[in-house]
Amino acid sequence: MHDLSGLFAPRGCAVLGASTDPEKAGHQIVVNMQEAGYARGLYPVNPRGEEVCGLSAYTRLCDIPGPVELAISAVPARFTGSLIEDLRARQSERGDLQVLVVVAAGYAEARTEEGQRAQDDLLAACTELGIRVLGPNCVGVVDNVNGLDTTFIAQVSREPGGISFLSQSGAMGAWLMQDWASRTHPVGFNKFISVGNMSDLDLLEILDYLRQDPDTSVVGLYLEGYVQGRRLAESFRRLAREKPVVVLKVGRSSHGAKAAQSHTGSMAGSDQIYDGMFKQTGVRRVQSVEELSDVLQAFDRLPRPAGRNVFLVTQAGGPGIYCTDVLEEGGEVRLARVREETRQSLRTLLPPFASVCQPEGHADITAAATAEQHAAALARVLEDDGVDSAILVTVPVLFMPGEAVAQEMVRMRNVLAERGVDKPILSVLLSGEPVREGVRILEENDLLTFSTPDRAARALSHLVAYEEFRWEVQGDD
Amino acid sequence: MHDLSGLFAPRGCAVLGASTDPEKAGHQIVVNMQEAGYARGLYPVNPRGEEVCGLSAYTRLCDIPGPVELAISAVPARFTGSLIEDLRARQSERGDLQVLVVVAAGYAEARTEEGQRAQDDLLAACTELGIRVLGPNCVGVVDNVNGLDTTFIAQVSREPGGISFLSQSGAMGAWLMQDWASRTHPVGFNKFISVGNMSDLDLLEILDYLRQDPDTSVVGLYLEGYVQGRRLAESFRRLAREKPVVVLKVGRSSHGAKAAQSHTGSMAGSDQIYDGMFKQTGVRRVQSVEELSDVLQAFDRLPRPAGRNVFLVTQAGGPGIYCTDVLEEGGEVRLARVREETRQSLRTLLPPFASVCQPEGHADITAAATAEQHAAALARVLEDDGVDSAILVTVPVLFMPGEAVAQEMVRMRNVLAERGVDKPILSVLLSGEPVREGVRILEENDLLTFSTPDRAARALSHLVAYEEFRWEVQGDD
Repeated sequence: MHDLSGLFAPRGCAVLGASTDPEKAGHQIVVNMQEAGYARGLYPVNPRGEEVCGLSAYTRLCDIPGPVELAISAVPARFTGSLIEDLRARQSERGDLQVLVVVAAGYAEARTEEGQRAQDDLLAACTELGIRVLGPNCVGVVDNVNGLDTTFIAQVSREPGGISFLSQSGAMGAWLMQDWASRTHPVGFNKFISVGNMSDLDLLEILDYLRQDPDTSVVGLYLEGYVQGRRLAESFRRLAREKPVVVLKVGRSSHGAKAAQSHTGSMAGSDQIYDGMFKQTGVRRVQSVEELSDVLQAFDRLPRPAGRNVFLVTQAGGPGIYCTDVLEEGGEVRLARVREETRQSLRTLLPPFASVCQPEGHADITAAATAEQHAAALARVLEDDGVDSAILVTVPVLFMPGEAVAQEMVRMRNVLAERGVDKPILSVLLSGEPVREGVRILEENDLLTFSTPDRAARALSHLVAYEEFRWEVQGDD
Repeated sequence: MHDLSGLFAPRGCAVLGASTDPEKAGHQIVVNMQEAGYARGLYPVNPRGEEVCGLSAYTRLCDIPGPVELAISAVPARFTGSLIEDLRARQSERGDLQVLVVVAAGYAEARTEEGQRAQDDLLAACTELGIRVLGPNCVGVVDNVNGLDTTFIAQVSREPGGISFLSQSGAMGAWLMQDWASRTHPVGFNKFISVGNMSDLDLLEILDYLRQDPDTSVVGLYLEGYVQGRRLAESFRRLAREKPVVVLKVGRSSHGAKAAQSHTGSMAGSDQIYDGMFKQTGVRRVQSVEELSDVLQAFDRLPRPAGRNVFLVTQAGGPGIYCTDVLEEGGEVRLARVREETRQSLRTLLPPFASVCQPEGHADITAAATAEQHAAALARVLEDDGVDSAILVTVPVLFMPGEAVAQEMVRMRNVLAERGVDKPILSVLLSGEPVREGVRILEENDLLTFSTPDRAARALSHLVAYEEFRWEVQGDD
């Protein structure tokens, strides 16, 4: 396994270019490191030695007494020369630096002679000094398992989880981080890595690291393009056999591809080639940021479905049909056929006008259903061997508030767990402020929610498709 | 024009089955009428004459002294007989009732003999008494222009606007209403109508009414199916020539179609037939509830684009490429080719590493751009005759918070308005809590925001496609 402990779990971390100005990245990095709970020695460094966020600063990197395995540089690209001197001094005196994260821009991505030269010089020096480089022009890394955040993103979820997300665009990473932090229940994750210009540490090496990282249950990737297609495919193949990989690849259109080329400088290549690569290697491709979030959470937080049979419980006709359309269009799942005794049981326990298994695999329990009836219907179908997963779609009404259905769901899940029934349950409470408390209760009890029925349907389709892939490749082994 | 003033602007409104129990629809209807500011006489009616929400109740409908043009019935279906007696007594003594909204379920949709008979009896009596019926099994209507809300939905936006939305499913309506009310800036609308079982007032009559309603700028429709396809197509054709119509049609899949049939009882018909009908009649079909919301708002709040040329201003590479993909896939818009002097002007005013018109119609102004540079770039391109609309995508950073870019955008829009430049501007601030204040400023100043770049791109595509349709049919006239 690659040793990237200097990046994710460093003993000692220096922030070069640490600033007293809250509008500067060199300030927010210190704020984020503190917020993340980093406690192994945080050292601001700036020329004037000004105190930053209550921490006294050093004027030179080599003055820091404790070990410093990670340095984060917010120093402008034009001062690369003095940055290199600082690094050189530290390594000659202490030799403890392992990784440098360069968040500053203005390097190779600027496509100027100076920018390219600054990047080349920095990389040459770091190689000589035995320092690995992430970036330049990246937003850094977050690690919620180790408690570290080298980014300057305004708001980041501190909730740990099994998702690790790798991004070729810092802004896409910031978008996702801020979105995840702003949810009713923040999305938990393990690592976020923004690779920037990939002058040294690149996509493949980090994918390989995440494959072996025991705290990573699923890998997400925002991809614009990668020059060495064959190596990328090999990396995907190895990774997808061990854990799910979810990729949002942009540059599908010709203009988009041009823009991608102009952005990362890498040849984007034909989108069809990428699409084929994803299919062959078992990578799940998603089409939107919302789908990326949903699918990553589904893989991280739901048990694996044992098959493709889903049962849909809806308390409202319209949203139920809406969900059915997307389930069927995906083509991955199948509406479950339950046993006659399950049908009978549903007919007995549900309100008189409920529509049971018309069509198969779907019970519309109607707006007359109580919270208990929601949970009981789900319990019955989940106990049926012909059902591998269930989706609930409900629009809570006055006498059946979201909180009540959430509490009944938690109780039902616990009872099923005692009976050894552990199948994916995807819940959709519609919508907005009136269901916020219900969503919070479900999420805090580790029952996964989705904001709309189609998003739940799509997430489940990916889960099932990936299991099918795993069954196939296991057959090959 | 049909006279539906008894439904949308009644003099006097009685709530039959008004309840003191906050969990009952007959309670929430009174709450919602009060919240909506209905002030032309609101009369709870219940057998015990109990006070509801501070209003003294009548035991019989015919006891209400003032005029009562609208009655809303939350009386259970099994009491339809006494409901009819009440209506009959009122009409024989006062004769002022014009419309009855029946929110109770358990009628024809229950597919029981009793349910069907109750609906038939009610309709026969109302026809005889000269009372139009909305429902049964509907959630009623909201009118934000007249200040009326006969629904029992937990949260409804009270913001007036030009959108009118018609739904064949009460739950889809509740979903949308609650979602619209829960936004940072609630979505404004004119009317929401849930048609329920359509025993009397049906889709076509209401579509025809909305066509002639001067306060309705755009019509939204959630559709499961309609038996008289030819008449629906004629209605769409007439309507779409006058104002945009946006339809979310479900039952695309075979299971979905079955579920739709089971839900509304109407033959769903082949989805291809509907799709063809939408294309021929100029109706804009959307695929999701989010898209429905976005497109309705875009039609209501943006000026009409004079052509298909869009200019994309992005401050972040990744989200920009993401947006470009969707713009190009839609095929409706074209990335604008601006004049040489516009290019020069952009190069001068933007940060040194900005990418201007590579590809055409796109300026990536980079994360170094200030709020002023955001607004200035947009102003330059909007002043170019080759540009018909603009999309801004930005991920605010520390030194350039969302509030700052929002304020500059408002200033810029005002300056352009003085110069007579009025083109659609679609703004995307990414993401979550850190941009909430910026979004609020933009929305309150009537600058439309979208939560993601692809949603903005899709909304603009619909706007342009509808204009193309109008140019075509005007050519035919």
